[in-house]
Amino acid sequence: MFERIKAEVFQANIDLVRHGLVTLTWGNVSGVDRKARCIAIKPSGVQYESMTADDITVLDMDGNVVDGNLRPSSDAPTHLILYRAFPSIGGIVHTHSAHATMFAQACREIPCLGTTHADHFNGPIPVTRFLSEDEVEGGYETETGKIIVERFERIDPIQTPGVLVAGHAPFAWGKNAAAAVENSLILERIAQIALGTYQLNPAISSLPAHIQSKHYQRKHGPNAYYGQENLRQEKRGRKK
Amino acid sequence: MFERIKAEVFQANIDLVRHGLVTLTWGNVSGVDRKARCIAIKPSGVQYESMTADDITVLDMDGNVVDGNLRPSSDAPTHLILYRAFPSIGGIVHTHSAHATMFAQACREIPCLGTTHADHFNGPIPVTRFLSEDEVEGGYETETGKIIVERFERIDPIQTPGVLVAGHAPFAWGKNAAAAVENSLILERIAQIALGTYQLNPAISSLPAHIQSKHYQRKHGPNAYYGQENLRQEKRGRKK
Amino acid sequence: MFERIKAEVFQANIDLVRHGLVTLTWGNVSGVDRKARCIAIKPSGVQYESMTADDITVLDMDGNVVDGNLRPSSDAPTHLILYRAFPSIGGIVHTHSAHATMFAQACREIPCLGTTHADHFNGPIPVTRFLSEDEVEGGYETETGKIIVERFERIDPIQTPGVLVAGHAPFAWGKNAAAAVENSLILERIAQIALGTYQLNPAISSLPAHIQSKHYQRKHGPNAYYGQENLRQEKRGRKK
Amino acid sequence: MFERIKAEVFQANIDLVRHGLVTLTWGNVSGVDRKARCIAIKPSGVQYESMTADDITVLDMDGNVVDGNLRPSSDAPTHLILYRAFPSIGGIVHTHSAHATMFAQACREIPCLGTTHADHFNGPIPVTRFLSEDEVEGGYETETGKIIVERFERIDPIQTPGVLVAGHAPFAWGKNAAAAVENSLILERIAQIALGTYQLNPAISSLPAHIQSKHYQRKHGPNAYYGQENLRQEKRGRKK
Repeated sequence: MFERIKAEVFQANIDLVRHGLVTLTWGNVSGVDRKARCIAIKPSGVQYESMTADDITVLDMDGNVVDGNLRPSSDAPTHLILYRAFPSIGGIVHTHSAHATMFAQACREIPCLGTTHADHFNGPIPVTRFLSEDEVEGGYETETGKIIVERFERIDPIQTPGVLVAGHAPFAWGKNAAAAVENSLILERIAQIALGTYQLNPAISSLPAHIQSKHYQRKHGPNAYYGQENLRQEKRGRKK
Repeated sequence: MFERIKAEVFQANIDLVRHGLVTLTWGNVSGVDRKARCIAIKPSGVQYESMTADDITVLDMDGNVVDGNLRPSSDAPTHLILYRAFPSIGGIVHTHSAHATMFAQACREIPCLGTTHADHFNGPIPVTRFLSEDEVEGGYETETGKIIVERFERIDPIQTPGVLVAGHAPFAWGKNAAAAVENSLILERIAQIALGTYQLNPAISSLPAHIQSKHYQRKHGPNAYYGQENLRQEKRGRKK
Repeated sequence: MFERIKAEVFQANIDLVRHGLVTLTWGNVSGVDRKARCIAIKPSGVQYESMTADDITVLDMDGNVVDGNLRPSSDAPTHLILYRAFPSIGGIVHTHSAHATMFAQACREIPCLGTTHADHFNGPIPVTRFLSEDEVEGGYETETGKIIVERFERIDPIQTPGVLVAGHAPFAWGKNAAAAVENSLILERIAQIALGTYQLNPAISSLPAHIQSKHYQRKHGPNAYYGQENLRQEKRGRKK
Repeated sequence: MFERIKAEVFQANIDLVRHGLVTLTWGNVSGVDRKARCIAIKPSGVQYESMTADDITVLDMDGNVVDGNLRPSSDAPTHLILYRAFPSIGGIVHTHSAHATMFAQACREIPCLGTTHADHFNGPIPVTRFLSEDEVEGGYETETGKIIVERFERIDPIQTPGVLVAGHAPFAWGKNAAAAVENSLILERIAQIALGTYQLNPAISSLPAHIQSKHYQRKHGPNAYYGQENLRQEKRGRKK
């Protein structure tokens, strides 16, 4: 009964490697089935080369294993917190991709420096604070989820589908596991280009707001006209 | 009747990916058929892996679809403006290639710092200004074409086959779609090497003018002697 | 009788190349058989493409060849010193991987700037001092081993499985040859991310100690819960 | 009669691409047959993908084509000057490899910052001066060869098998075409690591002289003990 979500999450994990976002086993993708109230996630520390769809672990929303023989990713509690707090997301990715991790380690958010960013993230990519000593002791991965949610108190996670955890690395998400992988790749490219932009012009300021808004809206707004998705409706509209 | 131009533009789009200039669907190539008064261009948001030559969209010079079932690249209006303003070009490429985009985001032109640059671009690679709020509202992609044309008021687009749109990314062009892809790759390499050059020597000035001119002329001048293209004429000349 | 260790060391050398850590022949892996009191190591200056498991050289702990027709890596005396001084390690890797070598040449240790580091190295990755003129004369490779051991006087080589030799390049080690290769790759990635972190924030300080400790312990402490290794015991434990 | 040298030079050109040192057609390798008094060199502007050994052009030492239907590399006159001035070299490579070209454009020599450098280049990798206007007019490629020779007035080209031409790019050489390709790759890696070293420590000084000398001598000195080349003599020596 979990075949579909396991297959989706398996493929998304493989794509993460194919995009060059993973060293060794430093990455994991999960997907949620909101109706079945469960998530599928990569097993902990398993090599991507030998992993099969059957190795994907399925957990209920409290983190109990309901399918699979392997221990889930140690980051599963972080994923669960995010799925609960952000009800419209369907997939989550965690990597240590090089350039996004540089910004996370430097504790610097990534402001919107260009249209590559504006096309996908509506505003800066935020950085969390560090966890306190008590938080680390009291459930490290759960608390990591909580400081992400805390950071998004006034940010819409759909318009900003990713975050940098201070001193750690990025998390990204999307409507499903595949979209989360795509946002993870986009976050890495944005970080790479931002690093070079700062090297060329340390005083650069954000893209003018009217251009930021235009780019985000042409891909994600109610009148989005990028891609093929609204083409049929449009044709129908014209025929009327 | 559009088979030739569609095949050319399809192959050029595939080459763009092969050269590593594209992440996801962030790039497009078009070609123009000046006699048939139409352009062929990549469809919007379509994955390169699954695209076929049949998916290439053909537009007349006013932007109306004359062949193909998919919506054209959202950047098509920019391409059309450039084909009208630069009558001697036959192909256009837009990418978000990493290093060229760093310069575009930093709003820094790329001066001619070496012979790699001088071999292909006769002078600095310019940056446009930002679009105003009115321009963004009044047809974003068309206005993007116009600020490129404005920037080239005193620049020959044949001798400078590319530009950085401020806060956005590069456009490049050439005598046909394949040449435009080549210039797009060259622009990316020039930007990569220029970034490192500035890191090693922030105060470096442009290559001496007499060396710049020599390099450009030996590849592009009336007495060009690089490559095999003029070899037959030369042999004929010698036999006289 | 040396087939197993030769096969292991051969495979580890091939993996080193597969991970992109080697240019030309700039790298070597060895493994030790503590019972048989011998080490297997890559032959000196041999191309990886044409190397076979039979080419791996076996030495006794005094450096005498006991199996193989080829001269061992010129770095063999360094490996031997490390095996003697660090009795719990089973494999050693030397590379000139780009980013780790940048730190070695810059004579800068790599402090723990993030969890990627903390997951694998418990504290900074240290740099040795330079060898004196007398030391260079008196057995260069042996003395290189000695200054590494000297640098680890107060460092546990199991918790810090790698070092930067000043002006030279990294050495890494692990419980066997495969683990040493993995630590060599990890050291290179940590160095790459640290370089970018410093470019974004030259004044960044180390990750707070409580987070460093948490990350190291969740992978390497007595109650480690990353990966699948302790899963069976845990299940047994739960059943009790 | 030119088959052997043409095959060698063809293979070396292919290897140059395989090592990632070439964009488009920006690179060429030549080899010399000192007895036959001729050189074989890549044809000008020909794609590597479609090139065959038959396309390699053979020139006499005055630059006249003695075999082949294609025009030789436009850099052939530079190669000829170097073969005349440096009688012990057998192959030459010119590329615009990214990191070496950064140093060339920045007009900065690469001092010996580590053993990777010391293993292969005995001292700094020098930069030429710029060509004057008269020199550019009077035979650009020949004069490029002359300023390299001028720069090596007090440098042994065997111990320093490469150079950075100011504002242009590197040349490297070796005992034959294959060795020249190898030195070209080494020069690129040295430049890459040197760039990062300067980013981490702008004030770093050269490797202590006694370590530089040791590393160069262990690979290239009369008592070299790296690799397998002297192994048989050594064994014979021991038997005496």
